[in-house]
Amino acid sequence: MSAPEETSAIPGDVRTIDVIRRKRDGHELSAAEIIHLVTGYTRGEIPDYQISAWLMAALVRGLTRAETAALTDSMLHSGKILDLSEFAAGKVDKHSTGGVGDKTSLILAPLVAAGGLVVPMISGRALGHTGGTLDKLESIPGLRVDLSLARFRKVLRACGCAMIGQTAEIAPADRKFYSLRDVTGTVESPHLICASIMSKKLAEGIDALVLDVKTGSGSFMKTEKEATFLAELLVETGQRMGKKTVALITDMDQPLGLRIGNSLEVEECLDILRGQGPKDLLDLSLELAAWMFHLGGRANTIPQGKDLADRMIRSGQALQTFCKMIALQGGDPAAIEDPARLPRARHGSDIVSVRSGYVSAIRSEDLGTACVVLGGGREKKKDSVDPAVGLVLHKKVGDRVSAREPLCTLQYNSESRAAQARKIIEHSYQITDLPPTPRPLVHRVIGKASAP
Amino acid sequence: MSAPEETSAIPGDVRTIDVIRRKRDGHELSAAEIIHLVTGYTRGEIPDYQISAWLMAALVRGLTRAETAALTDSMLHSGKILDLSEFAAGKVDKHSTGGVGDKTSLILAPLVAAGGLVVPMISGRALGHTGGTLDKLESIPGLRVDLSLARFRKVLRACGCAMIGQTAEIAPADRKFYSLRDVTGTVESPHLICASIMSKKLAEGIDALVLDVKTGSGSFMKTEKEATFLAELLVETGQRMGKKTVALITDMDQPLGLRIGNSLEVEECLDILRGQGPKDLLDLSLELAAWMFHLGGRANTIPQGKDLADRMIRSGQALQTFCKMIALQGGDPAAIEDPARLPRARHGSDIVSVRSGYVSAIRSEDLGTACVVLGGGREKKKDSVDPAVGLVLHKKVGDRVSAREPLCTLQYNSESRAAQARKIIEHSYQITDLPPTPRPLVHRVIGKASAP
Repeated sequence: MSAPEETSAIPGDVRTIDVIRRKRDGHELSAAEIIHLVTGYTRGEIPDYQISAWLMAALVRGLTRAETAALTDSMLHSGKILDLSEFAAGKVDKHSTGGVGDKTSLILAPLVAAGGLVVPMISGRALGHTGGTLDKLESIPGLRVDLSLARFRKVLRACGCAMIGQTAEIAPADRKFYSLRDVTGTVESPHLICASIMSKKLAEGIDALVLDVKTGSGSFMKTEKEATFLAELLVETGQRMGKKTVALITDMDQPLGLRIGNSLEVEECLDILRGQGPKDLLDLSLELAAWMFHLGGRANTIPQGKDLADRMIRSGQALQTFCKMIALQGGDPAAIEDPARLPRARHGSDIVSVRSGYVSAIRSEDLGTACVVLGGGREKKKDSVDPAVGLVLHKKVGDRVSAREPLCTLQYNSESRAAQARKIIEHSYQITDLPPTPRPLVHRVIGKASAP
Repeated sequence: MSAPEETSAIPGDVRTIDVIRRKRDGHELSAAEIIHLVTGYTRGEIPDYQISAWLMAALVRGLTRAETAALTDSMLHSGKILDLSEFAAGKVDKHSTGGVGDKTSLILAPLVAAGGLVVPMISGRALGHTGGTLDKLESIPGLRVDLSLARFRKVLRACGCAMIGQTAEIAPADRKFYSLRDVTGTVESPHLICASIMSKKLAEGIDALVLDVKTGSGSFMKTEKEATFLAELLVETGQRMGKKTVALITDMDQPLGLRIGNSLEVEECLDILRGQGPKDLLDLSLELAAWMFHLGGRANTIPQGKDLADRMIRSGQALQTFCKMIALQGGDPAAIEDPARLPRARHGSDIVSVRSGYVSAIRSEDLGTACVVLGGGREKKKDSVDPAVGLVLHKKVGDRVSAREPLCTLQYNSESRAAQARKIIEHSYQITDLPPTPRPLVHRVIGKASAP
């Protein structure tokens, strides 16, 4: 143990060890106690090992609404809060809790910016079996996501949207907490997730936020109950901070769209922006864009918002905004015109169905893990990502399939990794005689009191 | 975070993060998983922050008997296990879970050695509000407790007992786990306490072990239920490892004896070894010695054991053995003959009763804390201990007291510390009109199936 933070004898002082013990024993912490932890840890005065003990206690015992609010606030105030008041238009963002093939951010930022709003998007990297927006973006040759806040603002001015990674200035507390949670088994707490998401999003200087809370086998929240709990927490936190906030609970029981993997997903987003691409991805993108337009004051109703989104795609304005943003962030616009310039895997190999019937379930977490195994995600934090590899799905839930017909194709660069991935996927498709009952794409909307 | 231990992709391998998650979710870990944690942490391959998260999960979720056994075994086997088979006599030790004024180790080691057994005692330091045998011993000028195992063996050969601190060779895993628990709020778990105590004690090469499990306000186990749970765990673990083991649940609702503080407690032990000293301390010492003699084969019954202990005191042999041990460990034997040579505080100050009546309760944890505040214990791990300071009690539970009669005397070297300690103690004595119902000194004996 290096630099142990020892207990203090000064009466009235908050002692780290007491805060840990109190949470361990299930007591509610005061705002002062939570601020002590967050500021002490961010400044390096409290060591990792005390915070990880506290995180585990918080995960197992839970946090109250007041504790969650105090945690979010103190993480938010650990860094800069962007002031985007120079923009007259509504500032709105979308955040997804993460899923397999979930690529809507790349579609929504330019689409909603084209529709007249400002989208200052600060995104994350691949985590576990789920992909990361930044990794996907970086598969576009030359593109930088590590812009300074000054440059971020310039890109916003020029095209209405920008997509960057978390900077050292934005919620530095969350950066530290997040990397510790990742290696200490303390990710899966709705309260900690809420504080992490909202401290970053509230720092963006937005007026409104649409949350896409995933539920199902491919998400972190496996049940709708868990997803709803988290969604309510997020919406409550956003609204308490004076932001228009809604959460859509959307289906992640199978991957979204047909492509999983970094450059493969960029290609699919380009398809959508060209008015093509798979229906589920298009539908969800339109739905989320409609909510963003609605909260941002560009649409009175959700149908009006969908209509505006649809027009931005058909007119080519969304695609044009995307190209502009890519170029402003250093990316090669030619790769957008000609996706053959995006990284491509050297080999492809089909996985076929052993029998005929209907695809009744796909274990999407397996497909996400297979993509990680191929090199498209991270097993260790410092792993580099292969932008080219991934999966192309030919069959999704409800589709008819014949024996020996391909279910999906592995795109890979390493035979041994492909063999490992194949092993995982061979048991991920469930084929039955009868078609399954379809699941809706949007299960529920939380926080729509403020909307039609 | 330095040197994060990342997840491994090798199938079949135990991954630290999975072990943390499984305990977090309340699952039972396999022996292989526990061995992975203990060996990985001891070797420095698993960082503090992962172990502290696991410790918190283990504390909150609990460990099964099998997990506790695996943890004890792997901590035991992280270091050397002494082979004391060169000694024909029984090898026996006593361990106390810690209390205020609990100084029986200093009496029992020489007393039981004088009675013909070998007592290889590896002890601990002051912890929280409770004192530590090593700190008490070190108040004897010149005395060393950091003997090598070779020197330890020599002292044992020469006088039948020796008292040292934990060496780097004995249960190194426990050393690391223990210091981490101390600063992460993960001390108060009976399973972790059991593994910590038993891994050290079983490494001593003993045949039998008497455990003194304290219960009451001055101990870590506040209720008899908690104390009994821990006692059963300890006895089961000892017996499973083939050691004769009993646990006495003894009272710690008020301090043991009349003196609290390092050199003050050594003086009181000398009183007992001279056949004087307070009755509660004498009675408990005789009781524990009797069990040690019984388990070590020197007494068929507990009354016979008490009788032998009593004779060792009356004959002066116990005191003689103590002097011998002190000299062999580098201590000044003159300090034993003339306690005025022990460190003495410069000032004394009485705390008097505000009313007349009976002492019906003493918050012993407060008295222990007051002694720490005076400098007699540690607030931070690296604090040095003032051997001279402490408390001398004049009244204990059940005693009659008049208004303005002294309850205890502070022995101190710093006015400001004394003022702080006085503040704590002023409310620690409860005086009532009627005398309280006396509490027995020994509440229960666990594991006596093997004894009369």
